[in-house]
Amino acid sequence: MSNAAKPQTAITPTRADNYQDWYQEVIKAADLAENSDVRGCMVIKPWGYALWENVQRVLDGMFKATGHVNAYFPLFIPVSFLEKEAAHVEGFAKECAVVTHHRLEARDGKLIPVGELEEPLVVRPTSETIIGASFAKWVQSYRDLPLLINQWANVVRWEMRTRLFLRTAEFLWQEGHTAHATPEEAVEETMKMLGVYADFAENYMAMPVIQGEKTAGERFPGAVQTFCIEAMMQDRKALQAGTSHFLGQNFAKASGIKFTDVNNKLEHAWTTSWGVSTRLVGGMIMTHADDDGMICPPRLAPQHIVIMPIAKKPEDREKVIPWVKALKADLEKQSYAGVPVRVHIDDRDTGGGKAWHWIKKGVPIRLEVGPRDIDQDSVSMNRRDKGPKERANVPRGEFIAKVGSILDEIQTALFERAKAYRTEHTKTIDTKDDFYAFFAEPQKQKSNDPTPIHAGFAMAHFNGDPALEAKIKDDLKVTVRCIPLSGGEPGTCPFTGQPSKQRVVWAKAY
Amino acid sequence: MSNAAKPQTAITPTRADNYQDWYQEVIKAADLAENSDVRGCMVIKPWGYALWENVQRVLDGMFKATGHVNAYFPLFIPVSFLEKEAAHVEGFAKECAVVTHHRLEARDGKLIPVGELEEPLVVRPTSETIIGASFAKWVQSYRDLPLLINQWANVVRWEMRTRLFLRTAEFLWQEGHTAHATPEEAVEETMKMLGVYADFAENYMAMPVIQGEKTAGERFPGAVQTFCIEAMMQDRKALQAGTSHFLGQNFAKASGIKFTDVNNKLEHAWTTSWGVSTRLVGGMIMTHADDDGMICPPRLAPQHIVIMPIAKKPEDREKVIPWVKALKADLEKQSYAGVPVRVHIDDRDTGGGKAWHWIKKGVPIRLEVGPRDIDQDSVSMNRRDKGPKERANVPRGEFIAKVGSILDEIQTALFERAKAYRTEHTKTIDTKDDFYAFFAEPQKQKSNDPTPIHAGFAMAHFNGDPALEAKIKDDLKVTVRCIPLSGGEPGTCPFTGQPSKQRVVWAKAY
Repeated sequence: MSNAAKPQTAITPTRADNYQDWYQEVIKAADLAENSDVRGCMVIKPWGYALWENVQRVLDGMFKATGHVNAYFPLFIPVSFLEKEAAHVEGFAKECAVVTHHRLEARDGKLIPVGELEEPLVVRPTSETIIGASFAKWVQSYRDLPLLINQWANVVRWEMRTRLFLRTAEFLWQEGHTAHATPEEAVEETMKMLGVYADFAENYMAMPVIQGEKTAGERFPGAVQTFCIEAMMQDRKALQAGTSHFLGQNFAKASGIKFTDVNNKLEHAWTTSWGVSTRLVGGMIMTHADDDGMICPPRLAPQHIVIMPIAKKPEDREKVIPWVKALKADLEKQSYAGVPVRVHIDDRDTGGGKAWHWIKKGVPIRLEVGPRDIDQDSVSMNRRDKGPKERANVPRGEFIAKVGSILDEIQTALFERAKAYRTEHTKTIDTKDDFYAFFAEPQKQKSNDPTPIHAGFAMAHFNGDPALEAKIKDDLKVTVRCIPLSGGEPGTCPFTGQPSKQRVVWAKAY
Repeated sequence: MSNAAKPQTAITPTRADNYQDWYQEVIKAADLAENSDVRGCMVIKPWGYALWENVQRVLDGMFKATGHVNAYFPLFIPVSFLEKEAAHVEGFAKECAVVTHHRLEARDGKLIPVGELEEPLVVRPTSETIIGASFAKWVQSYRDLPLLINQWANVVRWEMRTRLFLRTAEFLWQEGHTAHATPEEAVEETMKMLGVYADFAENYMAMPVIQGEKTAGERFPGAVQTFCIEAMMQDRKALQAGTSHFLGQNFAKASGIKFTDVNNKLEHAWTTSWGVSTRLVGGMIMTHADDDGMICPPRLAPQHIVIMPIAKKPEDREKVIPWVKALKADLEKQSYAGVPVRVHIDDRDTGGGKAWHWIKKGVPIRLEVGPRDIDQDSVSMNRRDKGPKERANVPRGEFIAKVGSILDEIQTALFERAKAYRTEHTKTIDTKDDFYAFFAEPQKQKSNDPTPIHAGFAMAHFNGDPALEAKIKDDLKVTVRCIPLSGGEPGTCPFTGQPSKQRVVWAKAY
């Protein structure tokens, strides 16, 4: 690409030039997060944390509306608890933080761990085993069921390769844990919470998702069935954005969650677990941000509107500042998506670059207000979903009256754009050759060239054979992201000629 | 005390019989929390967590209203970070969880920690050092100040003797961390947040507190000045319910938080930190609960009102259930303390004991509604701040119209009762003999007799000598809880005859 043809962008490199570096630069320019001095752990900065707080607020309301209550369980899990569920320990013991001592002592000017624990403790990578121990105490009879609990917490998985928000050693999440008297009820719960996640992703994050089931190889360690929502990022890789697991009686047996049923028979409970994490913030970035920086979906934006007064001279300030304060107060009386409109006045004395500051942070609406706007009783408005120079003059009263619908327009525009992008890069494929050609990477010129943008999602039939799935992963780094719930028709597996129940989603994944 | 004279209570033992066991039993009966299988770590059960969520919601609003934003920093602190501040490491290295390995491997059927870390990590006991490392990167110029950050997080201190909510190895808290360009600004922030805590304690928890400064011996390790709010529990011991620290330049120097001031001179910043924790839930219990169980202050109660339909026969249920649902809906349209009134209908088929269930959980208002109440268009109301049998019939419309003011009456009654209790057990003392007599414990009859209720607060002059304070602590287990901000007059230290600037609060403490 020649430099002459390139429009100037606020983020360098662009998505096309180097997607991975673009992602880091967007995060930096929007001040969302940064790496810490602790291996693999990130610092979530105020703007990034405000996005997460809005995620929490909305999801927490959805969980409560579906009958769940919050509780809190220990950070530490005794190693013996992990040993109880064989598949689970296999999946999680490999990468965890182990606490072995409970004191530090100064020796030769250095602090040395002392006070060795009788039994080492693991910092929770997920809480099925420790919550199971509580459930075993709480559940005696079918009258104690269902037990519908959620926890907001930090978890630690000792990841070797980390990336801000998408994969970090410590991350924040919620984990739902429920216990039921019948498998039907537990499956219903599993699917209900998958639906809550899909609703949230599409209607709040403006991120289209495919709901589906994981194949055996991608299942949560210890689960009977794992369901997920999968979204396409702008490098056309798939992001697993939330999972909901039907655990059968596996964890109930491991933890001893037993109850007497209506017939006074002792039974193990049927459990589920489901979670989303700070990874969602990464999903928002990779779904919406552009070459000028972050774009916050209005329903989760830390601020809906930033007002920039244009007034340097004292007499102008005397006119402009009270006017924008009154505007802010009037806007805050409006509500959008069930909460008051959030407005920030940026009155910093920064010289230029103020608009670009907020473009890069992705605030949905920017208003500039100078003495002439006030004379006309109007505001000068920019929308983040449009070009940085597309400006509209809107009468004050009209803007206040319409602010909710303008925010909704932006929200919808972002969703539709993301959906169109996914549609454009999703291909129905019926032969093995087409499949391999679709996922073939463009040749790199040099070994240190950035990874190119990928192909997208392939909708292809599949006979379900794990060995075939492993071979394709080996060949192309492509996996079955999910078997969509909205299944479609039976057909023929292009790799084997065998029958296939439905098309599945194939893609490279985060 | 003879059993014949004793009224029956829902909690055994009573406060007078065995205060410590009473506390545990109240928590159990209200289902607030329980000990976990992990040493010193508690499980916060849904009812207890709902109280904490309300604490979070209100305090978070207060922090934001005073200009703070939330962020999140790593759970782990490299040991070398702790070494940077000498007083700090002295205070915290003694009792901490140390992560030394990052993997478990099965050997002979047991999981063994492997993958030793080059540098051990401490699970944060408090975050001054790790947040300081970020601040050092974020602050360059006086224009970057003040930096006003809060974090909601879990922390771990390896306590040997733990008690639910009051002292646990892991607890939940918020920690504010701010950096300023001048010591005056940092002191102002320290005092402002102390004021926020006092406001919250008195106006939301209904727990009267004394604001004051700690003596040197009780200061936060590394702080220049520590301020606190202190409350009297019903065993007349003091509970330190929140602290706010002026850290001077100590942590800025340890972490390298430097900025160029208006004169382009390089300076270390002035920092503060302040925190409250799940201990506040313990404070609410010990301030308000009685021999019938928990009493939730209305402004933080998980439910404001529980409605118990009295209807066994199908025809009664047909009449009562829709009526109470409509009542609930009408009540939820009312608001109290800025949020919609929270109403729960308890329609469980439990036979008797339903009212006692909610008495023990401490819901402020209980309503019973049967067919006859409906015929009279009224509800049968009990208030948790009054006796369990003091019932009032209130017309439906009147109850809905007045629900906010009834809740406020209860809130105020709880605060006034706690304040009167504190006044009753606070004594102004002017001689050493009176002081020693005041704090002398009643003789125990047997060695395993429960600790008796204590004396209370002594307001006595003090010359400020640390050695004297240590001697008194040694003699009586009594310490200076704080030097009250509302200082009073100078006088004479009763222990030394030397001059004293003001009376201080002496008490036994949690």
